Parts: sequence; C-alpha cells; structure tokens
Amino acid sequence: MREAGLEARLDEVSSVFGRVPNSPGPWLLLGSHTDTVPAGGRLDGAYGVIAGLEVLRALHEAGHPAAPRVEVVSFADEEGVGAGGGLKGSRHLVESAHSAELSGYLELHIEQGPRLEAEGLDLAAVEGIVGIDHWEVVIQGAANHAGTTPMPARRDAGRAAGRVMHRLNGLVSASDPEMVGNIGALQLLPGAPNVIPGQARLVVELRALQAASLQTAAEALHSEVMAAAEEARCHANLELRTSVPPVQMDPRMIAAVEAACRASGRGWRRLTSGAGHDAGKLATRIPAAMIFIPSRGGVSHSPDEYSTDEHLVMGAQVLMAAALNCLAIPSI
Amino acid sequence: MREAGLEARLDEVSSVFGRVPNSPGPWLLLGSHTDTVPAGGRLDGAYGVIAGLEVLRALHEAGHPAAPRVEVVSFADEEGVGAGGGLKGSRHLVESAHSAELSGYLELHIEQGPRLEAEGLDLAAVEGIVGIDHWEVVIQGAANHAGTTPMPARRDAGRAAGRVMHRLNGLVSASDPEMVGNIGALQLLPGAPNVIPGQARLVVELRALQAASLQTAAEALHSEVMAAAEEARCHANLELRTSVPPVQMDPRMIAAVEAACRASGRGWRRLTSGAGHDAGKLATRIPAAMIFIPSRGGVSHSPDEYSTDEHLVMGAQVLMAAALNCLAIPSI
Repeated sequence: MREAGLEARLDEVSSVFGRVPNSPGPWLLLGSHTDTVPAGGRLDGAYGVIAGLEVLRALHEAGHPAAPRVEVVSFADEEGVGAGGGLKGSRHLVESAHSAELSGYLELHIEQGPRLEAEGLDLAAVEGIVGIDHWEVVIQGAANHAGTTPMPARRDAGRAAGRVMHRLNGLVSASDPEMVGNIGALQLLPGAPNVIPGQARLVVELRALQAASLQTAAEALHSEVMAAAEEARCHANLELRTSVPPVQMDPRMIAAVEAACRASGRGWRRLTSGAGHDAGKLATRIPAAMIFIPSRGGVSHSPDEYSTDEHLVMGAQVLMAAALNCLAIPSI
Repeated sequence: MREAGLEARLDEVSSVFGRVPNSPGPWLLLGSHTDTVPAGGRLDGAYGVIAGLEVLRALHEAGHPAAPRVEVVSFADEEGVGAGGGLKGSRHLVESAHSAELSGYLELHIEQGPRLEAEGLDLAAVEGIVGIDHWEVVIQGAANHAGTTPMPARRDAGRAAGRVMHRLNGLVSASDPEMVGNIGALQLLPGAPNVIPGQARLVVELRALQAASLQTAAEALHSEVMAAAEEARCHANLELRTSVPPVQMDPRMIAAVEAACRASGRGWRRLTSGAGHDAGKLATRIPAAMIFIPSRGGVSHSPDEYSTDEHLVMGAQVLMAAALNCLAIPSI
C-alpha cells in the first residue's frame, strides 16, 4: 500500500487499511481478506485485496477525483481457522467508529462454486449471501444383537437416519430450487457391525437466501425425520444449534455492479453466494455488494483453486467500473 | 466336577472336561463355555456348563447306566474378547484326537433373542446356526463445498449410503423372511457438516440359515448399492470381507431334543440361532444339537441378561431327557 503511495494502517484486530493520504472520507471500501485455510489456494480472498489495491493505485496514479473517496482493506481472519468463528476483521469493523465513515463496501471474490463455469459465464453480481442453519438430529432406537433380533422387532436408528440422508436432496429442492442442504457426518452408536444401531446423530445444514426457504425446509425436515423415526419404531429430536441469517446485498449497489458487468461485454448473471464472506457482515451495517469470477471446477480451499489470468484481470477491471458506478450513487 | 465325583482335566487350550472315572467312551458331550464379554451377564454360556454338570452329577449319583457315556465340557474363550476370534476351545477340540472319542454334542443355552418370550414359549429345538457374511461397501462420490455446489451438481456418497441403510430391512426380508441383516456403523468422509460426503464406508452383515438366502440377499444388496450409487452420481464397490458358513444341526439329535421338549409338556418350537455357538463348530465334526430357553426381553451380553429360575431348572431337566434320547440313537 505504501509503495502505491497510500497511507496504510492496522486496526485493533490487525485488519490492514490503505487510502490516499489526507483524504477526508467518507470512503467506499474495496477489499477482502488475505488469510486462508490450511492447504488452501492463492485466490480466496487475497485476489479481492490485491484487485482493490490495484483499483485504488490506478485511480491515485491517474489523479482521478474518485481516488480520495476509496479505501482498501485486507480483513483479518475471515476463515476462522483458529478460535472465534471467522469474519474477525469485518465483525470488528461493523462495531467500530470507522464504519460510520464508510459509504459502502464492494468485494471481488472467486465464486468457489461451479455455476459460472458450467454456464459459460464470466461474471456474477451477487444479490445476497445465504443464511445457514445447523439442525442437530438425534434418533433414538434400541441397540440390540444383530443376529438374534428378528427384522420386524428392530428399532434401528440407522434405518431412520438413512431415509433422511436419502431424501434430504429432494426435500431441500422442493422447498426452494436454489437452496442447498447437507448431511456431512453421521454417528451410529454403539457402532459395531454386529450391533443394531441404538442411536443415530447427525447435523443437517440448510442454506438459503430467503429466510422463508430455511423455514419451509426446516418444517419439511422435521416431518421427514419424525416419519422416518416412526417407520423404524424410533423416537427423534431436532434442535437448531446455530443459525446465521441470510443477508441481502444493497439493491443500488447490485445495480451498479450489473451496469459494470453489462458494460464489460462479458456474459454475466445474478448469483447467490452459498459461502459466507466479509461482505455479509458489512451488509448488516452499510450498503454492500460483491462481484464473482469463475472458479475452475468450482474448487476452493484447495491448492487446486484456480481462475484464469484473463478472468483475474477482467474481474479487477469490472471492480473499478463498479466502484465508479457506486460512487455515482448520491449517498455513496 | 471333582465334588460331583467326576474325573476333571484341562486340555491344551484350558477347556475343562469332566467324566465318570474310568469310563471307556465314546461320550456324548454336554456343555457350553464359562467365559463371557466385558459387562456381560451370568447365563451366556455358564448356564449350559452348570446344567450339563448337573445332568451328569445326577446320572452318576443315581448309578444310571448312561453316566459313563456322558462327558461335560466348559469350553475356553468362546466369545473371542481377546485375540483369535473366539470359539477357541471348540475349534481346538474338533482338530484334536479327542473328537473321535465323542459320539455327539448337546448344548443348552439362553436364546439371547426375543422370539420365545414374544411367542409365550418355554423351549426351542435349535435346527441350525446362521452363516454370517460381512460385505464391505465403499461408495465413492466427490467431496465438495456444501454451500456453493448446487444440489443437482452433487455426487453425495452419503445420499447413496442412506438409501442402502433405509432399504436393507426390506431387501433382507424379501430374500428370506427368517434371515437378518444389519448396518451397524457408517463412516462419511471427510466428515464435516459443511462438506458434501465424498466417500461412504460401511459393513453390511447378513445372517441366514440357508446359504442360498445369503446369496440371494447378497445379489439384492449388490443391485441396491449400484442403483443407489448411480442415483447419487457415485461409484460403488462391494467386497466379501468375512464369511462364516451356516451350520445344520444333526437331524436325529434335533428329533431327540424335540421328543424331550414334547415330553416336558411345555410350549416349544424349532428355532434358528442367529448367534454363533460352540455347537456350530462341533457340528462340523460330530453330530450336534442345541436347546434354548427364553431370554427376558431378548437381552444378552449385558448385566440385565435374565431368565427365570423356573426356566433355568426346566431347561436342565429337558437337557437330561434330550441327552438320554440322544444316547438311544444307535450311533450315539
């Protein structure tokens, strides 16, 4: 940032900010995070920080009048690899006095999903970030000898859990074709080949942009779990363990991003982010928006994470155009 | 055994044998095992040893001519809690010279299942011991971000495994209404709520008295696993990890047990043993049969294992009657 002629500083949680010296604010904040996960890739989210810095450097070097109205950030600990749950820098910012000096937040990021590549598109204007609910499901049957207990006499918690695992896909898609759901782990207890599972424990993750979809899917999940438990002569209990509400991006800023996408001449679409981002936290306090470029194979959090140089450069160019569009919005 | 006036000895693996001193053989062997599992009950299989000893003691004290033709055994390490897989004493016996001196083997045991109690019966003549096949199933999908991967793009190994877990019950019962099958443990990898399961590993246990039923169920399992994998856009592999063949009890000895059950005036039925027993190993070498009495709630391998005193005494009486019936068979 100093090499780009900017004034750089750390805040209390070590997020790094840079802006044109003596610029008065308010500022449109551009950026992302530079931390990553173990065995992660080089793009999530360093790409958005470097692109934001490049936009401000270019504006500053060109003497553009927008330069003093832009600030760049590299947020601390977005991934939450250590304790604390991530989004450390953005959580700190929205609670700090500096957030009142910001007119908006614009973040460029790789998609981390396969949709742009699959549809042959180059850009996405992110309309929101999904909410994430974690439902803990416990199905209680009766552990018993797997050889001496006749099939009709069983209370097999694994059989009930299996039905839920199999039907989750259809249940989720019927609630909202755009939402997703996952069962990533299952524990059968006591857990031996020759013992009928007496208990099954699993976490159902539901993600949707609309709170109503999360509720519809949760109700369908509840009905399915209860019916599956009854079929296997078991009992079941569901508890909402964690709930992160969905976030909508700012409509005027989405329009500003869309105008930049359109002007680029590239193929683009609106998209919901299925992953969390600093922009989701910022959107709870100030107008925010995001731009996605394609991820090869949808792969992220892996050394195989990859986007073409052409997409990386184009994304930065669209970020500049979108930032200038945003700065043309009266309140930004 | 010495207090009962018998000659007692240990064999090479510490099974304990007792018989009338200077009896010439061949002998009808009565007994079971006295080892148990951690936190097990008091009846599996000490009951069969004590009852066999009581039968021989009574015959010997009465000067009954059958007494010198009976031997009692407490087999070593039937459960296989340590290394070696169990049935240590009976496996040693069938490979030793002493087995040629035995005319048959008769074992009294608790049912360890709920069927006699559920049907209000007091006795069972065991017609055979199930074979046990362990099929290891590996379903290979693709681990991916549970937020950014659309539902139709997933290759969810857990979804396929769930279908198999849910449908095993029907598949097994359709192959043979008397057979059983179990999935006691499942591993989803990598195993996090926010990662789509890329691999599912499970063991399907199949038990049946007829080898043909094991084969029919294995074929149905194979088809179901392949269809479930295909539906979830996964691949699957099945391998037979262990296979213990079913064992039929000796028809003449079954008839001798049935005659004793009938003479007792109690309610009885033929039954297949879903659990393994020393009698299964002995049956591979000499004529063998078993008698079951009811287990309260079908519970075994637990301190709650329980049979009424009335059933325990009655079982020993029927064991004596059945032993005498067996000794009336020309070759025994």
